[in-house]
Amino acid sequence: MKIQLFIYPGMTLLDLVGPLQVVSAWPEAQMQFVARTPGPVASDSAAQLVATHSYAEAWPDPDLLLVPGGGEPTYALLTDEQAVDFLAARGSRASWVTSVCTGALLLGAAGLLHGYRATSHWYAIESLAAFGATPVHERWVIDRNRGTGGGVTAGIDFGLALTASILGEDYAKAVQLVLEYSPQPPFRAGTPAEAGPTLTGAVRSRFDSRPVSMQAQVRAAAARLAGRAAT
Amino acid sequence: MKIQLFIYPGMTLLDLVGPLQVVSAWPEAQMQFVARTPGPVASDSAAQLVATHSYAEAWPDPDLLLVPGGGEPTYALLTDEQAVDFLAARGSRASWVTSVCTGALLLGAAGLLHGYRATSHWYAIESLAAFGATPVHERWVIDRNRGTGGGVTAGIDFGLALTASILGEDYAKAVQLVLEYSPQPPFRAGTPAEAGPTLTGAVRSRFDSRPVSMQAQVRAAAARLAGRAAT
Repeated sequence: MKIQLFIYPGMTLLDLVGPLQVVSAWPEAQMQFVARTPGPVASDSAAQLVATHSYAEAWPDPDLLLVPGGGEPTYALLTDEQAVDFLAARGSRASWVTSVCTGALLLGAAGLLHGYRATSHWYAIESLAAFGATPVHERWVIDRNRGTGGGVTAGIDFGLALTASILGEDYAKAVQLVLEYSPQPPFRAGTPAEAGPTLTGAVRSRFDSRPVSMQAQVRAAAARLAGRAAT
Repeated sequence: MKIQLFIYPGMTLLDLVGPLQVVSAWPEAQMQFVARTPGPVASDSAAQLVATHSYAEAWPDPDLLLVPGGGEPTYALLTDEQAVDFLAARGSRASWVTSVCTGALLLGAAGLLHGYRATSHWYAIESLAAFGATPVHERWVIDRNRGTGGGVTAGIDFGLALTASILGEDYAKAVQLVLEYSPQPPFRAGTPAEAGPTLTGAVRSRFDSRPVSMQAQVRAAAARLAGRAAT
């Protein structure tokens, strides 16, 4: 399996590492960490991950393409033509096209979710419609060869579900046992419904007040995608 | 908060990144990624993380020391005197001494869990007794200023529980909502009890057959610790 992980400055590290830890248990998994420039890439959690390949050096036809999300850096990337065109090219030839969290917006901007059911972080999910996707409020969604996980930690659930799809349920269960994945969140506050309107409103306001607006970036990216489709 | 993350070749990346993603949301968090030598450090999932500081350059008195686990590379490190002595020195002065998964064995080898209740990965938990700790079969354990998470994915639950201890429950819930942590594992196979004896036996046999034996390394590390305590 040629597994191609798209990385970029400011990405949410756990978006990537949740499913990465799962798929690294797949037999004969080969990995490429692809960024504009090889070398250290900062994440949103201070840790730097090493990009092993540039866009030009990346396999043209990966078995699996995985795109993590994030906050403002991810929204900014929606109008980065080089990044979006790279994803469009690789996604059109990949056997599996996948994302976690707001990584789905990047897949959407690349035209890879048009006509597909998909999910994303609760803050971003409705924006998928701008790219012709059908937003689905589930922890993960697998529609044909598109697989999308919800916000951040959903990548672990999604990774296991994808493993079951590709390698079978027994294989996925063995990975789950190795990773001791029997979660016990100390609180029930992981979704807007669980957290309630006060906490959700506070977090949403914080997201809304960022200088780089998700909504504006989605509009710009959707306009470019529509323009490309028309030509 | 001066947060010192101990990293080493072959560590399990998600052990580190689960709690890292949580604590990176703490106010004024400063991070050091410490390894023997600064620069790229390979993990067990192919991704390389960048070490920012050597042992000698690391803060002598971090507010939080976090030690991730892993498989054979972690067992090998139990008898690496330079690594163990580094952890003993930093752990003796850190406000919080924490681990995820088999990282607890490293804390144990450094003498940091003697007389404390602690947890670890299901494969390793009983070995904690060799270092004078009391093994506790819980998802995470906080005993005075020692905090330990269970296997791999337990680091997320542990990180949120630690956040609540230090910054309060409301703060922890906001982080949980940002990370959309409302897990839905596709299967129930995350613990030996859930997975059942057949699957657990198969995974345990695989772990037992590795060239670097956890049990032998624990015995050697415990003998050295006893020798140090006697002098």
